[in-house]
Amino acid sequence: MISISKLIELALEEDVFSGDITSLTTVPADAYGQGMVHMKADGVISGVEVAREVFRQIDERIQFTHLVMDGDIVTKGQTIITLEGPLRSILTGERVALNFMQRMSGIATKTHTVTSLIQEFPTRVVDTRKTTPLLRILEKQAVRDGGGKNHRFGLYDAVMIKDNHIKAAGGITKAVRAARQGIPHTMKIEVEVENFDQLREAIESKCDIIMLDNMSPSDMKLAVDRIAGRALTEASGGITEHNIIEVAQAGVDIISLGSLTHTIESLDISLDLFEKKNQE
Amino acid sequence: MISISKLIELALEEDVFSGDITSLTTVPADAYGQGMVHMKADGVISGVEVAREVFRQIDERIQFTHLVMDGDIVTKGQTIITLEGPLRSILTGERVALNFMQRMSGIATKTHTVTSLIQEFPTRVVDTRKTTPLLRILEKQAVRDGGGKNHRFGLYDAVMIKDNHIKAAGGITKAVRAARQGIPHTMKIEVEVENFDQLREAIESKCDIIMLDNMSPSDMKLAVDRIAGRALTEASGGITEHNIIEVAQAGVDIISLGSLTHTIESLDISLDLFEKKNQE
Amino acid sequence: MISISKLIELALEEDVFSGDITSLTTVPADAYGQGMVHMKADGVISGVEVAREVFRQIDERIQFTHLVMDGDIVTKGQTIITLEGPLRSILTGERVALNFMQRMSGIATKTHTVTSLIQEFPTRVVDTRKTTPLLRILEKQAVRDGGGKNHRFGLYDAVMIKDNHIKAAGGITKAVRAARQGIPHTMKIEVEVENFDQLREAIESKCDIIMLDNMSPSDMKLAVDRIAGRALTEASGGITEHNIIEVAQAGVDIISLGSLTHTIESLDISLDLFEKKNQE
Amino acid sequence: MISISKLIELALEEDVFSGDITSLTTVPADAYGQGMVHMKADGVISGVEVAREVFRQIDERIQFTHLVMDGDIVTKGQTIITLEGPLRSILTGERVALNFMQRMSGIATKTHTVTSLIQEFPTRVVDTRKTTPLLRILEKQAVRDGGGKNHRFGLYDAVMIKDNHIKAAGGITKAVRAARQGIPHTMKIEVEVENFDQLREAIESKCDIIMLDNMSPSDMKLAVDRIAGRALTEASGGITEHNIIEVAQAGVDIISLGSLTHTIESLDISLDLFEKKNQE
Amino acid sequence: MISISKLIELALEEDVFSGDITSLTTVPADAYGQGMVHMKADGVISGVEVAREVFRQIDERIQFTHLVMDGDIVTKGQTIITLEGPLRSILTGERVALNFMQRMSGIATKTHTVTSLIQEFPTRVVDTRKTTPLLRILEKQAVRDGGGKNHRFGLYDAVMIKDNHIKAAGGITKAVRAARQGIPHTMKIEVEVENFDQLREAIESKCDIIMLDNMSPSDMKLAVDRIAGRALTEASGGITEHNIIEVAQAGVDIISLGSLTHTIESLDISLDLFEKKNQE
Amino acid sequence: MISISKLIELALEEDVFSGDITSLTTVPADAYGQGMVHMKADGVISGVEVAREVFRQIDERIQFTHLVMDGDIVTKGQTIITLEGPLRSILTGERVALNFMQRMSGIATKTHTVTSLIQEFPTRVVDTRKTTPLLRILEKQAVRDGGGKNHRFGLYDAVMIKDNHIKAAGGITKAVRAARQGIPHTMKIEVEVENFDQLREAIESKCDIIMLDNMSPSDMKLAVDRIAGRALTEASGGITEHNIIEVAQAGVDIISLGSLTHTIESLDISLDLFEKKNQE
Repeated sequence: MISISKLIELALEEDVFSGDITSLTTVPADAYGQGMVHMKADGVISGVEVAREVFRQIDERIQFTHLVMDGDIVTKGQTIITLEGPLRSILTGERVALNFMQRMSGIATKTHTVTSLIQEFPTRVVDTRKTTPLLRILEKQAVRDGGGKNHRFGLYDAVMIKDNHIKAAGGITKAVRAARQGIPHTMKIEVEVENFDQLREAIESKCDIIMLDNMSPSDMKLAVDRIAGRALTEASGGITEHNIIEVAQAGVDIISLGSLTHTIESLDISLDLFEKKNQE
Repeated sequence: MISISKLIELALEEDVFSGDITSLTTVPADAYGQGMVHMKADGVISGVEVAREVFRQIDERIQFTHLVMDGDIVTKGQTIITLEGPLRSILTGERVALNFMQRMSGIATKTHTVTSLIQEFPTRVVDTRKTTPLLRILEKQAVRDGGGKNHRFGLYDAVMIKDNHIKAAGGITKAVRAARQGIPHTMKIEVEVENFDQLREAIESKCDIIMLDNMSPSDMKLAVDRIAGRALTEASGGITEHNIIEVAQAGVDIISLGSLTHTIESLDISLDLFEKKNQE
Repeated sequence: MISISKLIELALEEDVFSGDITSLTTVPADAYGQGMVHMKADGVISGVEVAREVFRQIDERIQFTHLVMDGDIVTKGQTIITLEGPLRSILTGERVALNFMQRMSGIATKTHTVTSLIQEFPTRVVDTRKTTPLLRILEKQAVRDGGGKNHRFGLYDAVMIKDNHIKAAGGITKAVRAARQGIPHTMKIEVEVENFDQLREAIESKCDIIMLDNMSPSDMKLAVDRIAGRALTEASGGITEHNIIEVAQAGVDIISLGSLTHTIESLDISLDLFEKKNQE
Repeated sequence: MISISKLIELALEEDVFSGDITSLTTVPADAYGQGMVHMKADGVISGVEVAREVFRQIDERIQFTHLVMDGDIVTKGQTIITLEGPLRSILTGERVALNFMQRMSGIATKTHTVTSLIQEFPTRVVDTRKTTPLLRILEKQAVRDGGGKNHRFGLYDAVMIKDNHIKAAGGITKAVRAARQGIPHTMKIEVEVENFDQLREAIESKCDIIMLDNMSPSDMKLAVDRIAGRALTEASGGITEHNIIEVAQAGVDIISLGSLTHTIESLDISLDLFEKKNQE
Repeated sequence: MISISKLIELALEEDVFSGDITSLTTVPADAYGQGMVHMKADGVISGVEVAREVFRQIDERIQFTHLVMDGDIVTKGQTIITLEGPLRSILTGERVALNFMQRMSGIATKTHTVTSLIQEFPTRVVDTRKTTPLLRILEKQAVRDGGGKNHRFGLYDAVMIKDNHIKAAGGITKAVRAARQGIPHTMKIEVEVENFDQLREAIESKCDIIMLDNMSPSDMKLAVDRIAGRALTEASGGITEHNIIEVAQAGVDIISLGSLTHTIESLDISLDLFEKKNQE
Repeated sequence: MISISKLIELALEEDVFSGDITSLTTVPADAYGQGMVHMKADGVISGVEVAREVFRQIDERIQFTHLVMDGDIVTKGQTIITLEGPLRSILTGERVALNFMQRMSGIATKTHTVTSLIQEFPTRVVDTRKTTPLLRILEKQAVRDGGGKNHRFGLYDAVMIKDNHIKAAGGITKAVRAARQGIPHTMKIEVEVENFDQLREAIESKCDIIMLDNMSPSDMKLAVDRIAGRALTEASGGITEHNIIEVAQAGVDIISLGSLTHTIESLDISLDLFEKKNQE
């Protein structure tokens, strides 16, 4: 997996490549500037540390001071970061830093909104693998910053047996047994069920987690009762801000929401710069 | 810049890493399957060729057949791709392929909606640099698939003189002159102006493109008249589906919209698989 | 994580670098040869597919035919692979292919020996993280080829709470609670205990796996009784071929052995080549 | 060839990947600790500088102090390194650092044992290319740390003409001539001989080094006499701790031993950590 | 595109690889030295900052002081850089640093000679894409250091329509229209013409730059008159130091010269070292 | 060291990057073309196989047929390669392929000229490390294609003791002894001498090669006599086409010439394309 540091390096290479020709030709090499990053909308901030690394990679002389931390609730107009350093370098990094922060904050904000709705329930809200390719590690952080939790990271760190696996293996029982046999004892097995026949088989398979796929809240409640603590219960599919309270009331342990990451409304953030007369 | 092929390689590494343990343990190595990718919403498709490369990288035995092409208008329920090959491999690639296609199609669909509004005008709708880090090359393709055009690719292939550059250089005239002196003769210079004083100076600087930043449609119209063809005119800032027709009526050559890429609603696409009895 | 294909590429680069000057200068470019890889010792073979990829990367014209499969028991003198192709290319790949296979087969053979001792017990023999840097994915495969199972892959795919974590967190109860709170619900938690006080706390923490560290077989038996199925039990530390049966008799679910991978006796394998008069 | 720094980066990526979740969730971010690395067996230490780089890459705040140097003889119980820094970071690096050091020290110790046996002779003990893929540069250092010397690094930096090259070239004379013609004048040529006919031809070819392959000590002595200083003499094949003195007595200049690196018994080393009350 | 820092890393890897064995074996690790880089010929220096980065990558303890800056005119015997640090490290970096500087200074010197010939004209002298693979970014810098300007960087940042494109598109008019339609509005279009028919079509196509390919100076003058400022004019092909004044007199805006980079005479530069008695 | 295949990949990335926008917009995707690469000057060709790989990497559909082989003498007007395939792809690869071939052929041609002057002597002409950074492997091949031989590849594959090493080690005797002790027995040692005192010490040190640095031909002859076959003799420094015959007459075994690679006059080669009416 690509590291965050490498992600940022590639993002800068993508935008800057052979050079920020505008700044190189119009801004004197010795011009110093100050910058203030402030919010243009309310929300939950995420990506401050990513922004710090963006500017660090461009120019170690830039002084980056955070006034908020990832996960903080912020309001329109609030200054969240101050910068000071060579004006050219700050200008060069502006867009990449904002592109990361705006997306991450959009996810954190959405997650916060959703989790707030069911904060009185013990239910966890988690993400899915429906993340932007290459940015999963950041988007999962944004979900945590917004008060959510993470589902498995990828195909490699937990077993999730879906319809096609069940058919290929010849039933839930066989699929779970085959998986249990082949995986480390440190790994969990989750089974996706669509009806009560499957549910019964899943319970008997002694899998660790049962995902209730596209069930109505009332069916979910019934399913949770039947499982009776013998597996964790996860609700998935068709859950929105409109029905999430009902789902939580059904008593599931976890609600997974692809929309946390697959439909992103960037949170508006801007960077205002001004040149300083005398370099410090 | 990272190539599309490398992007996909990294995306697969991110999701699959040490192995798709569910498929490896529950699906027999010799199970063959067929898959049909179909639309769960109306829109403009983008990313078909990316999906092809995803499956090609996983397993060259997968036969990938496209029934539509990037840029085609598609409708809910329509089958857009068929797959045939080792079931394990198709399952392993499913999510990464969909993650790319859903995002790209979301952008293409949004672009199509916007460009359709002003299709009777000669005005170009273009994207900005507010793209998802590392995916710019794909998101710019999605914009084109949706009927839009591209702005500059990054900081390196055109000059864009903004407020801070103007201040640092000591005025538009000096900034344009400095840029012209330092860049290849094959490159254009764009200047962002916020008022009519700046506009006059920009026109006199003989820059190639003038961006009218956050102007009202009526001011834009006035600006276009003043420029009188001596530079391309680009409108930017505060433009939505609600006022884009007015902006086009103002006569600008180009409208740039960050929202095409910074606020993404993934288009819903799914992959249905079924196992085949006899391998071919 | 580095892919197997990349591992092999780096291994070839390490050995071949600017060229196999001996073969390039002494062997005609059009000389064809046949090779037979055979065993010079008894054991369990592992790494055949790695060897195939080594030769494929060097020269796609080499025909590589396996006569055994990874995990097969082989005997001294047995031919396990035949090769046919450009003599230069076979010579160039010989050492790298053997270096991989000999190490992997050494691990598989050792694992087989150990697991055979306790084959009548339901106990799993698993590896540890004491693997050769960069070769973990291959060494874990070799353990499976030898009839063992794998422990967690790395620091990222399961929680293992050891003495230092317990002290830092302020006790097993707090450590498990903190971990449970911070990790995906798809992940398991293992706690290492050294005595019966810790054991009691671990059981009450509802962790998923309890590692009995350096306990005597009789203490292990007592511990297994106390746990009574409420967690998986893993024995670790000081276990050798001499006492492994006693440990299995104690009733633990898993025995983990660092020695499977940290002390390697390569299995002797050689490649005999002969030139062919007529190229095919 | 991969650099040592890159090797370590990949080894950390292999083990840590998306994060050491145990330490991240159970150890407070501001917990500081001290660590002492000490020997659990007697031997020759190797890999101290590698361990330093492991911890440096994880966290520059870790203070790493070496009490011994690579190549020093160490005894069970001896403290060889002290560490001080963020407890999380020390815990994260522990296993990778030990995995490198234990293997390297195993090789150094074995080399030291072997070279000690013939220390009264002028004979050099050298390694071979039978090293662990990707770790050759470190294993060759470990051999030197143990008092041995290195053979050629790979296929690219010296010519080694073996049986198959001789056949393909049409005899030793032709093979040596072809090699001499094709390689830089700065490179040596070694020829492997199995009998006295080949020996005579090798001597006449004016190659630089003659390897006596699997000869008995008495034949080696005869061969050394015949060569009479006209080439360096290297003994190889079937040499163990039991007969190495006889081989040295035969008067060869060099003894090459694949077993120095292909059969590794890791030297046991451990890291004890304790948390500090007050951070410094 | 490979960054300059990565270029240097690869260049060092190419030369140093597994180690500078001469310095490692003959120079004590604690020997300190001073070095003076001086010119052995007159010219324009280029590559000083590259040399600084070479030594920085090898050993951060080396103090590198520049006495001239890239683009300065230097004379034989002049000292341009002083170095102080570990003797081993300076010796290891010597050749790579000089290899970069000598080539770059050769290009800068040649460019200076050519541009000096026509310094009284407003004509720009620019390079082409006939650069050394992988070193384009440095060679284009060397051209600027010598007083020249750059043409487009590659195939991606400007359109250059040549004979084959014209044929494939069905004429200049169609080619320009197709390009204009497909490229960002921020990009320019250049058309290569060989005669006056093509010239007329190019002018009417409203392309941004017209390249006059292999025309005589008198024809160029005629062409410049016809174009009458409606496009930039670029002369290319068959231009040498002998006829460049005539070409400039013809009134073209730009003269492009492949020879600036495809035929390189390295400028002779050397590094003298001496050991210091006492380390500082 | 970077592989040739990777070198070409980077060279294409440098030139093509996000796309050959001219060909993409003006040449239809289905246009097929034929190309003929022919010489515009007499010389020795080198780089044909590199060009083949360039086009292979761009588009596997391109049929590349070589009419000459690396090292062949070619004459102005001669067709050396034919191409057939998608016109876009051929156009995209043209410049990179020519940039490689022109430089390599320039080196081969120059080498051929020089070696021809002394072809009646047994003296070898070899290159130095004064090669273009990153292209050493190709430039050394070009030297061989031109009839020359190679010196050591880098700092890692042979010892070259120069003035500074001698001073640091405390004399030639000590330096050679230290090197001999530290390096593999498969490696040679070369000593650079400037006068007869150093020569005597070098002979007595039993080094393998003695480089006579900047000596007059008469002094070289004297030196060769004194060495009397006890070491290879290499002449270096101040040798040009004007005095190389005298140097060869002095009886040295090797003449090394930095100018073969540090001063490059590209050999003019061009690619003519024409579109085909019907695709095949």
